[in-house]
Amino acid sequence: MANQFSLGAAWMKGRIIPISEASIPINDWGLVHSDITYDVVPVWNGSFFRIDDYLDRFEASMAALRLDPKINRKQIKGAITAMVIASELRESYVAMVCSRGTPQVAGSRDPRDCLNHFYAWCVPYVHVIKPDIVKIGASALIATGVKRIPYDSVNPIIKNYHWGDFTQGLFEAKDNNYETVILTDQNENITEGPGFNVFCIKNGLLVTADHGVLEGISRKTVLEIAASLGLNIQIRDLPVSEFLEADEVFISTSGGGVIPLVKVNNTIFANGTCGPVTDKIYRTYWDWFKSPKYQTRIEYK
Amino acid sequence: MANQFSLGAAWMKGRIIPISEASIPINDWGLVHSDITYDVVPVWNGSFFRIDDYLDRFEASMAALRLDPKINRKQIKGAITAMVIASELRESYVAMVCSRGTPQVAGSRDPRDCLNHFYAWCVPYVHVIKPDIVKIGASALIATGVKRIPYDSVNPIIKNYHWGDFTQGLFEAKDNNYETVILTDQNENITEGPGFNVFCIKNGLLVTADHGVLEGISRKTVLEIAASLGLNIQIRDLPVSEFLEADEVFISTSGGGVIPLVKVNNTIFANGTCGPVTDKIYRTYWDWFKSPKYQTRIEYK
Repeated sequence: MANQFSLGAAWMKGRIIPISEASIPINDWGLVHSDITYDVVPVWNGSFFRIDDYLDRFEASMAALRLDPKINRKQIKGAITAMVIASELRESYVAMVCSRGTPQVAGSRDPRDCLNHFYAWCVPYVHVIKPDIVKIGASALIATGVKRIPYDSVNPIIKNYHWGDFTQGLFEAKDNNYETVILTDQNENITEGPGFNVFCIKNGLLVTADHGVLEGISRKTVLEIAASLGLNIQIRDLPVSEFLEADEVFISTSGGGVIPLVKVNNTIFANGTCGPVTDKIYRTYWDWFKSPKYQTRIEYK
Repeated sequence: MANQFSLGAAWMKGRIIPISEASIPINDWGLVHSDITYDVVPVWNGSFFRIDDYLDRFEASMAALRLDPKINRKQIKGAITAMVIASELRESYVAMVCSRGTPQVAGSRDPRDCLNHFYAWCVPYVHVIKPDIVKIGASALIATGVKRIPYDSVNPIIKNYHWGDFTQGLFEAKDNNYETVILTDQNENITEGPGFNVFCIKNGLLVTADHGVLEGISRKTVLEIAASLGLNIQIRDLPVSEFLEADEVFISTSGGGVIPLVKVNNTIFANGTCGPVTDKIYRTYWDWFKSPKYQTRIEYK
């Protein structure tokens, strides 16, 4: 029988509660100023994947935003581990969040006056693109109606909830029967999509964007895999025109791993299937994803 | 004696509750994607100011984001009026919010699958810059470390919670002992600050930004006042260099009205006081703010 956390659990102020009961105040600056950062570590086969890489990034994001929830790394690890154990989820999407909170000085508009707070939640594993769509070939539209928020306004290296550009792009994509969207910067370079990094391959050369994107842990894993496979790698501006002329294109995400795109705009890649290089990266990704080298076992009861 | 709503009240799903009890789910897309819009109408002397202008803008924002909370204008007006009456607040900051909500289809990443919802809250009147600071002369820093999010990424005409750029700028300003911050666009034009529009006056010419800014109701009121006073008005690009050479500069906000700035960066304006043109606009603003022409009386019990 499903436990009370079958839809997910949350850790808030030291208590583990059903996700449906977890909420934040409507005047928390995490909401009203989107003054908040987060990270998401996947759990697979009852183990965290590259947990310390995710924690490194989460701590770097908090430091960059000058958020201090007064909880250390060991306590964060303890909190999310206890929460996942309580949830009994073996495949899970585990979010860690730190919000600005509310000012402790009445009427203050100064972020330095706020009481920052940490919380976490986990739900059954999230697929950014559903496996049945991946199987028949996922498609993406390069949005024309909206550009990615530039890094000198909101730096995407700091994982954030500023998704207005992605949402507008998703409407454009969905209205045109594409599964997801890819945004460009203001100079027509490929950046990223909602929840994923983007790659292309041509003649054994792998290219991905160097700026205006999250430095995804899955992106890092893909780059390590590509190096191990002897591919040439370039991390630089990736013009839309070059991208659309690639042999193969794929995305990487903690919510699904390596996912080939068979169609972008009107261009069909690799004859509408997963290309041979993407396939190698895909298979290696799942080997690594399940490898003890990158996994931290969770001791369920 | 203070009632249970002395710190503020909220209207959620037809119920009026203390603001301290009002919260939204931690996985609501209004939070996790900042996929949400809002508006704020001031109440002064027990009356709403220009309520229909604020409602027009709120409805336009919802339509632009394709949010439909299934509640009409009359019901919104009824909800916020009942809430303010319950709060007994005569001077209040009244927020109306519409959030994307959560998908009604398990695992969906499609914003069209979400159940949108409306809520509202009110607190004692908010001063974007505190009156005691305004009295001695408010200062602002033009941020150098961050640019305003461009309108082709997140359009500021749609009132939104994407404040990452403002927050970063506020830290820069506060660290340097300025009261608030003004952001520029990517071409060194003045845009806006956290919660206000920006104006400058030189030789009887009033200039304010035409793009990359919220079309504030207080901004609209200032422009109408300036026209009534016979000032020349230009709504266009406002370069930082021109702004810093103005005779007088001020900001407008629903949280405090017309507020002169006496110092921006190292430049002192109008000998460190409120300049004569700003003073005329300021006095007219408060006349209009309290005028039955723009007020809608609230029938308290």
